[in-house]
Amino acid sequence: MDADLLIKNGVVIPMVGQKIFNRGAIAIDGDKIVAVGPTTEVADEYGARRVIDAGGAIVLPGLINTHTHLAMTLFRGVSDDLPVMKWLERIWSIESSLTPQDVYWGAMLGCLEMIRSGTTCFADHYFFMNQVARAVEETGIRGVLAQAIFDKWGPGDIDTSLEGGLNFAKKFRDTANNRITCMLGPHGTFTCSSDTLKRVRQTANEEKLRIHMHMAESKEEVDEVKKQHGKTPVRFLADIGLLGPDLLGAHAIYVDEKEMSLLKRTDTKVNHNPTTNTKGATGTSPVPEMLKRKINVSLGTDGAGSNNTLDMLEEMKVTAILHKLRLRDPSVLSAWQVLEMATLNGAKAVGLEEKIGSLEVGKKADLIIVKTDKPHLIPMHNVPSLLVYSANGNDVDTVIVDGRVIMDHRKILTVDEEEILRKAQEAFEGLLGRSGWKFSASKMPERQL
Amino acid sequence: MDADLLIKNGVVIPMVGQKIFNRGAIAIDGDKIVAVGPTTEVADEYGARRVIDAGGAIVLPGLINTHTHLAMTLFRGVSDDLPVMKWLERIWSIESSLTPQDVYWGAMLGCLEMIRSGTTCFADHYFFMNQVARAVEETGIRGVLAQAIFDKWGPGDIDTSLEGGLNFAKKFRDTANNRITCMLGPHGTFTCSSDTLKRVRQTANEEKLRIHMHMAESKEEVDEVKKQHGKTPVRFLADIGLLGPDLLGAHAIYVDEKEMSLLKRTDTKVNHNPTTNTKGATGTSPVPEMLKRKINVSLGTDGAGSNNTLDMLEEMKVTAILHKLRLRDPSVLSAWQVLEMATLNGAKAVGLEEKIGSLEVGKKADLIIVKTDKPHLIPMHNVPSLLVYSANGNDVDTVIVDGRVIMDHRKILTVDEEEILRKAQEAFEGLLGRSGWKFSASKMPERQL
Repeated sequence: MDADLLIKNGVVIPMVGQKIFNRGAIAIDGDKIVAVGPTTEVADEYGARRVIDAGGAIVLPGLINTHTHLAMTLFRGVSDDLPVMKWLERIWSIESSLTPQDVYWGAMLGCLEMIRSGTTCFADHYFFMNQVARAVEETGIRGVLAQAIFDKWGPGDIDTSLEGGLNFAKKFRDTANNRITCMLGPHGTFTCSSDTLKRVRQTANEEKLRIHMHMAESKEEVDEVKKQHGKTPVRFLADIGLLGPDLLGAHAIYVDEKEMSLLKRTDTKVNHNPTTNTKGATGTSPVPEMLKRKINVSLGTDGAGSNNTLDMLEEMKVTAILHKLRLRDPSVLSAWQVLEMATLNGAKAVGLEEKIGSLEVGKKADLIIVKTDKPHLIPMHNVPSLLVYSANGNDVDTVIVDGRVIMDHRKILTVDEEEILRKAQEAFEGLLGRSGWKFSASKMPERQL
Repeated sequence: MDADLLIKNGVVIPMVGQKIFNRGAIAIDGDKIVAVGPTTEVADEYGARRVIDAGGAIVLPGLINTHTHLAMTLFRGVSDDLPVMKWLERIWSIESSLTPQDVYWGAMLGCLEMIRSGTTCFADHYFFMNQVARAVEETGIRGVLAQAIFDKWGPGDIDTSLEGGLNFAKKFRDTANNRITCMLGPHGTFTCSSDTLKRVRQTANEEKLRIHMHMAESKEEVDEVKKQHGKTPVRFLADIGLLGPDLLGAHAIYVDEKEMSLLKRTDTKVNHNPTTNTKGATGTSPVPEMLKRKINVSLGTDGAGSNNTLDMLEEMKVTAILHKLRLRDPSVLSAWQVLEMATLNGAKAVGLEEKIGSLEVGKKADLIIVKTDKPHLIPMHNVPSLLVYSANGNDVDTVIVDGRVIMDHRKILTVDEEEILRKAQEAFEGLLGRSGWKFSASKMPERQL
C-alpha cells in the first residue's frame, strides 16, 4: 500500500502498554498513522514517498505540555530568586506594557523552543490569544488555546472578559487543519468571581468548550479563597459546579484527601508543574497519591518567566526525582509512569485522547525522534529511563506534527528561526524599555531612574 | 605581545566578583591565561596564532564536578526507581564482575559526557583508577583522582587497600602535564574502620595528599556509625582527626548545627549532589545554611548509575530550585551563588584554587563557550540566570583545558568518539552478561535464568 512517509529502524515506543519495537517502523499517510510495528512487516507492506531511517534512534509520541503561558518566554530571567509577591509585581509591571505584537513574537519563540525540545501539543493560557493562534498556524505545532479571563484583576486595558475569551474560542476552534483546539480560560479561583465562574461553566456546557484554569497553587490562594468563600479552592469549585471531566486544573498543590476524592469522582484533570512550583517554593502537588486514585495527572512546564524553560524532557526528570524525595521512597513514580504523564495523560487532559498521545493506527501522526548516539545516552537499554533521566530537549532530532515534518535533523522547516530569535530579542528590549526596566548581562532588570 | 589563542567578542564571566565583559576577550599562551578584559583592549595588545570569535556566546570558567564515579556511566539505567538497598544490591552484583578494561571504557565515556557538557575538571572516586588516569591523559580533561579504600566491604578481588590507593596516588600525581592530581579515597564512615581512617589521615599528612570520601549521606550510614562508634558521622570524623581543610566530604546531608560548626572550624570542604540524593530519596544537604556559615560547598553529579547524567548545567538548576522549596523561600541560592559553587568553590574543594575556578591572568586556561543563539536562551540578558536556569550540557559549544581546545564547535578533537561509544556499549553488554543480568529496551536489567 501507499503512504506518504515511512519511519523505519527506530526503537519505537508507541505508549501502548509497555511495548517497545526494537527495530520498529511507522507508516504515515496524510496526517494519520496507518501502521506501527516491526520494520520488517511495516516496510514490506507500505511503499512510501519519503523514508526516514531512524538508525536506532528512539521514536515516541510527541510530548504534550498541558500548562504554559507561551508568550512569557519574553519574561525569561526577568524575575528569579524572588518571593512570590515580588515576582508577581515585576511580571505585572512589565505585562502592563505588553502589546499583541509582543505576544506574537514571544509565542513564536516559545513554539520554536517547544518544537526543538520535542513538544508537539501544548495547552496555553494567556492574553491576545489570536497572536498565539497565529504562531501555531505558522510553526505547524498543535495548540489548545484559552484566553485568560479575569474579573478581579486584569493587566490594564487588555481584554480579559468571558465574552472576549468566548469570541476567541469560537473564531479559532478547529482551525489550522484542526491543529487548534480552544478552551475557556478563567484565570483562577480568586481572580474570578463566583458569578463569573458559574457563567464560565454554563458557557462551557452550551458551547462544548473545555475549561483550563489555575487551581490550588499557593498558600496565598487558599487563604484568599477561604476569605472570599469560606472554603478551600477545590471545595469551592466543587460547590459552584466547576469540577468535571472537561476541567483542566493546573498545579493542584493544596488538595487534601477529601478534595482528591472530589477530583476523582468528577474526573477533573490535573496538571503538574514541578519546576515552577519548586523554584517558586509554592509546594509540591501530591502526584503519586493522585495517580494511585486514578486521577489523570499530566505534565506542564508553566511559563518561561517562572521555569525558566519549556523543556518537557527536563520536566520529566524533575517530576520523577522530586516525589521520591518528598515521600522518602525512591520507588514512587517510575520512568514509565512519568512518560505516560507527558503523553497519554496529556492527551486526556485536553480531551484529545482519540487523536494524540500514543502511536496507534488512526491517530494523528504527532511524533518525535530522539537521537541516542551521544555519550550521555549510552549504554542503550532501558529506554524509558534514558528518556526520563538522561535525555534533554536538545537531544530531539526530528519532529512531526499532523504528518508533517516540522523539524528535520534539528532544522526548523516551517518558519525563519533566525528572524524569530532576532525579533523576540527586539520585542523583549522594547517591552522592557516601555515598562521602565533596564536590563543587563549580569543581573535581573532594574527599575530605570 | 604574542599569544597562542585569542577568544574575542564573548560575553565573558570571569567569576571574579560579579563582573561581566559584554564584549570580552581572553588571551591564552601555552596552558595559561595572559589577559582578560574588553575585546578592544585585549585584541589590541595580543596578536594570537589562532583567534576564536565567540560571536556573543558566553565564555566562563570550565565547570568543576567535585564528586563522581566516572566508570559508572556503564551503570546508567541499570538500577532506577528502587529502594537504596535494592539499588546497592544490583550495583554490587554487577560491580563484582568489573574489569580494568570496563573501567577504562566507562571512564572514556564519562570523560566525553563531561567535556560535552562543559566540565573541565572532576574529582573521581572508584576502582582501577589507573584506567581513569589513562582516560584523563587521552581525552585532555583535568582529573582529581582517588582510588577507593574499603576495609569492611569490598568488591571481590579488586584492590581497595590503603596501600593500593597510596601507590596509585604516588604513581600518577602531577602526571599528564599536571592535569592529574591525586587524593586518598577512603570510601566512607562505615565502610572503613577507625584504624584505617586514622592511617589515611597520617598518610595524607605525610604525603601531602588530600582526602575525598563519602560523609553523612544516609540515615542508614548515621545508624551504622552510631552503632559502631556511638556517635554521628561528622562527630566521629572530628574525633579521629579526619576533618580538615584537605578533606572533601561528599553529600553531607545529615549534619546538625554543631556539626556545621565543626566543618566550619576545620575548614572541611563539602560536596553537594542534589540529583542523586533527590532521586535516591536520601535527603537534602543544608547547603544555604552551610554557605551562610562560609563553609565551602561545591557541586557534583555523583555517578551516572544514580543521577543518571554527568551534566553540571543540569545539576546547577536542580541545586538552585531544590533549596528554595525545602526552605519555602524562593530567594535562597541565587544563580550567582550556584555558579560559584560549580566553579570557584569546586577549585577550592580540590585544592586547585590557585590554578583554576576563575578566568584570571596566571591561571590555567580551562574555559568553556556556551552558544546562546537558541530559542531557550533568548532573550539574552541576566546571563547567570540563563546558565543556571535555562541552559543544559548540550549548549556547550567549545571546551578548552590547559590552553588546548579539546572540543571545537561540538567536535571532540582528542579521541575517536564513535569508537568510544561503541566500545562502551560493548563493555556494558559484556559486563552485564558476565554478571548474569539480561538487559532490554523496555526495562531495567533482570536476572538471567
